Amino acid sequence: MNFKLVFNITGRVLMILAATMLPSLAVALYYGESGAPFLYAMLILLAIGFPLSRLPYEKKMFAREGFFTVGLIWLLMGLFGSLPFYFSGCFHSIVDCLFECYSGFTTTGATILTDIEALPRGILFWRAFTHFLGGMGVLVLTTALLPFMGLRAHFLIQAESPGPVFSKLLPRQAQTSKILYGIYVALTAMETLLLRLVGLPWYDSLIHAFSSAGTGGFSNRNASLGAYDNPAAEMIVAVFVLLFSVNFAMYFLLLCGRAKDILKSDELRFFFALTAIATVLVSINIFPIYQSVWQCFRYGFFQVTSIISTTGLATADYMTWPVFSQVIMMLLLLCGACAGSTGGGIKCARVLLSLKGIVRDIRQIVHPRSVSVIKLDNKVVPENTLNSIALFTVSYFLISFMAALVVSLDNFSFATSLSAALTCMSNVGPGLDVIGPSGNFAAFSNLSKTVLSACMVIGRLEIFPILVLLSRRAWRRT
Amino acid sequence: MNFKLVFNITGRVLMILAATMLPSLAVALYYGESGAPFLYAMLILLAIGFPLSRLPYEKKMFAREGFFTVGLIWLLMGLFGSLPFYFSGCFHSIVDCLFECYSGFTTTGATILTDIEALPRGILFWRAFTHFLGGMGVLVLTTALLPFMGLRAHFLIQAESPGPVFSKLLPRQAQTSKILYGIYVALTAMETLLLRLVGLPWYDSLIHAFSSAGTGGFSNRNASLGAYDNPAAEMIVAVFVLLFSVNFAMYFLLLCGRAKDILKSDELRFFFALTAIATVLVSINIFPIYQSVWQCFRYGFFQVTSIISTTGLATADYMTWPVFSQVIMMLLLLCGACAGSTGGGIKCARVLLSLKGIVRDIRQIVHPRSVSVIKLDNKVVPENTLNSIALFTVSYFLISFMAALVVSLDNFSFATSLSAALTCMSNVGPGLDVIGPSGNFAAFSNLSKTVLSACMVIGRLEIFPILVLLSRRAWRRT
Repeated sequence: MNFKLVFNITGRVLMILAATMLPSLAVALYYGESGAPFLYAMLILLAIGFPLSRLPYEKKMFAREGFFTVGLIWLLMGLFGSLPFYFSGCFHSIVDCLFECYSGFTTTGATILTDIEALPRGILFWRAFTHFLGGMGVLVLTTALLPFMGLRAHFLIQAESPGPVFSKLLPRQAQTSKILYGIYVALTAMETLLLRLVGLPWYDSLIHAFSSAGTGGFSNRNASLGAYDNPAAEMIVAVFVLLFSVNFAMYFLLLCGRAKDILKSDELRFFFALTAIATVLVSINIFPIYQSVWQCFRYGFFQVTSIISTTGLATADYMTWPVFSQVIMMLLLLCGACAGSTGGGIKCARVLLSLKGIVRDIRQIVHPRSVSVIKLDNKVVPENTLNSIALFTVSYFLISFMAALVVSLDNFSFATSLSAALTCMSNVGPGLDVIGPSGNFAAFSNLSKTVLSACMVIGRLEIFPILVLLSRRAWRRT
Repeated sequence: MNFKLVFNITGRVLMILAATMLPSLAVALYYGESGAPFLYAMLILLAIGFPLSRLPYEKKMFAREGFFTVGLIWLLMGLFGSLPFYFSGCFHSIVDCLFECYSGFTTTGATILTDIEALPRGILFWRAFTHFLGGMGVLVLTTALLPFMGLRAHFLIQAESPGPVFSKLLPRQAQTSKILYGIYVALTAMETLLLRLVGLPWYDSLIHAFSSAGTGGFSNRNASLGAYDNPAAEMIVAVFVLLFSVNFAMYFLLLCGRAKDILKSDELRFFFALTAIATVLVSINIFPIYQSVWQCFRYGFFQVTSIISTTGLATADYMTWPVFSQVIMMLLLLCGACAGSTGGGIKCARVLLSLKGIVRDIRQIVHPRSVSVIKLDNKVVPENTLNSIALFTVSYFLISFMAALVVSLDNFSFATSLSAALTCMSNVGPGLDVIGPSGNFAAFSNLSKTVLSACMVIGRLEIFPILVLLSRRAWRRT
């Protein structure tokens, strides 16, 4: 392991993290609140980050270093990003600060806060801003960095963006990242503006735009987006979370004038088909409650988009809906958004390829001599990718079940324990029972909160970078 | 598809099914009950089975025909096996008869009966006897028939009995089956005798021996095995369900005097390690309830063995235990017993190989140039087998989730809906909440009962034979 390189990169990231606290500091000062929590955090970050970034290093980077660095950076981001929370004095414990911050950076949106509106505006701004930063981090991670990390990572990225791969669209990583950031920021700005136009205050518009951009779910209101009872705002957010759930390669194609190719994306069609089917099923299922087609569509569509995009904002409490709708929510939560987006979950591409794999296997039993390959977007998918996907899915469930087992020690209901693990692995936020849309994670023990924080990071980084961090071999010098 | 061969085999099996009703008829007559339900059923079976068995056929059998026949036979066994239930008039509907019969033949043990003790003894005997027959059918299926079904099936069987494969131990299928039956019947007889010795009546001993032999779970008492409050009987059943959960190849090895090789089986060690760990965890977790080490071990050990063996007999209601123990039960239920046994679930061999696959993948990220193969019992496991296992597991969850979605339309709790699907797929029997150890499946709608019956058969046949039945291509003449 090339530790010097790893530390050098880490140091630079910590310094960038300090810089990202400036907007929140400005907000705090603007509203006449104390800037101290941010100033202290920035000082600590610079004091640690600057010396690390000066370390001399060799330019040798393999998959190992890549995974290790990515894992380490996400762990440290949560650790240092929670400092403003800690210094604000609004949180009960360090574990709570860490949980909230990991929930932010991983764009999960699960909260341990029972009264969100009681917090200073600067802190709430930072809380939502971590979603925005986390979403950006994930985009760059899965689309720009991973393809350069060697064979194994190449399989991973193929599994994730089986559509057009960024590196083929644009020659240089820096250029790719720049355009990626541009699209991301432009979409967020557009959403902020639209939310302002339909009546939300500037501050609230910004918070909810950050929250949707990262498909996170943090709101500055206790009742989430439902607090405004503003159908126009709900539809804007619903459409934007879908836009942020789409493989960002689609926007590259749009910019290149290849709009037709977008419609050929199997994953995109699968994603929209799932969203449409789920919306219809849920809307019918909740009709006895709302008694109006428009109201059913309004709440059904919003909740479906919020969950499949792994955002987790709420306008209604689906725990008051029939169990059928709750099961649909849990299935959407598992499936998640498209690869190469800010959304989490297993990802539509993986689910679709697994389905194709099963159909292929049946065909091969019926016609053993037939050679059948699996295609996505009319391109043959290598067998290695299919195996990676199946193994990923199995690991996903295995880790979730182990986490649910630990969480169950708190003796909340089975549905609470299992959904807590799954919602954190999928980076959604709400679950069932105690942690339903109108609940929160405050009642869990520190052990559960720690395990769930770990699940968020593991799920966000698609398992393997974190497992590498845990491997004894990775820590050996070579 | 060689339909004539398929129908010929099916005809013979139906005639055998008629013959297997003779003991139940004898029991009914012995206790002075009506023999009519069995006589009617036998007449119908012979009337259909005899002409079919006379059909001329070509001796051409490929994997396709194999899977198709196996799927069809299991579907018909449930259909015709439910006739005595139907003619007895003790069941509310045809769907209930079918559910109970599929639950029997698939050795699930889920019941729609609310008062078991009200039924005639002949009918209860047949009900338990379906477990015994089902267990036998599964043993022959997975150990004797599948290896002869071509390449794809060969992968399946390798996935299932990665230990010594029967076909290598003995040259001929007929011989293999005979010895297999011998071991199975001898173990069942031994258990019956031991249960009688510790005080259970002959009838009850036989019922519970059938139930354990098939790792089924049907009892003739409403309170299951707990009705006797007989710790000796409980320990006998616990040990025997473990014996029936072991790969039957182990008994071949024992007979061949190769006892040392048994200890080298990775799956067996994994299975016993899981059982031991789960017993310790559950016993500690329920200590506040029973306040005695012996009582905790007694109930903990029994319930752990009952669930991991996918039997589902009960001596205590784990729904009154802490949620931690309930989650352990659900995880054991998913994992299931060893391959090549009468137990269900995903199977220990598959879980163990998945774990090894994940560890291997991490190693390869850390050391990309290292060539690492996965070994079981010191033999290299082919990559194809690993892929089959991962795909199997993904299909397993996918089908369970779809079934849970349908069941959730009945609006029971999330835990009920999900656990109903999982317990039926894993052929266990009890689940959570409404269908906990002291509950039953009576309250479900006909739709749910039908879907859950399908799950039992799909789970029992390890998914693929049933999927082949559903494939349009399989129905084409060639």
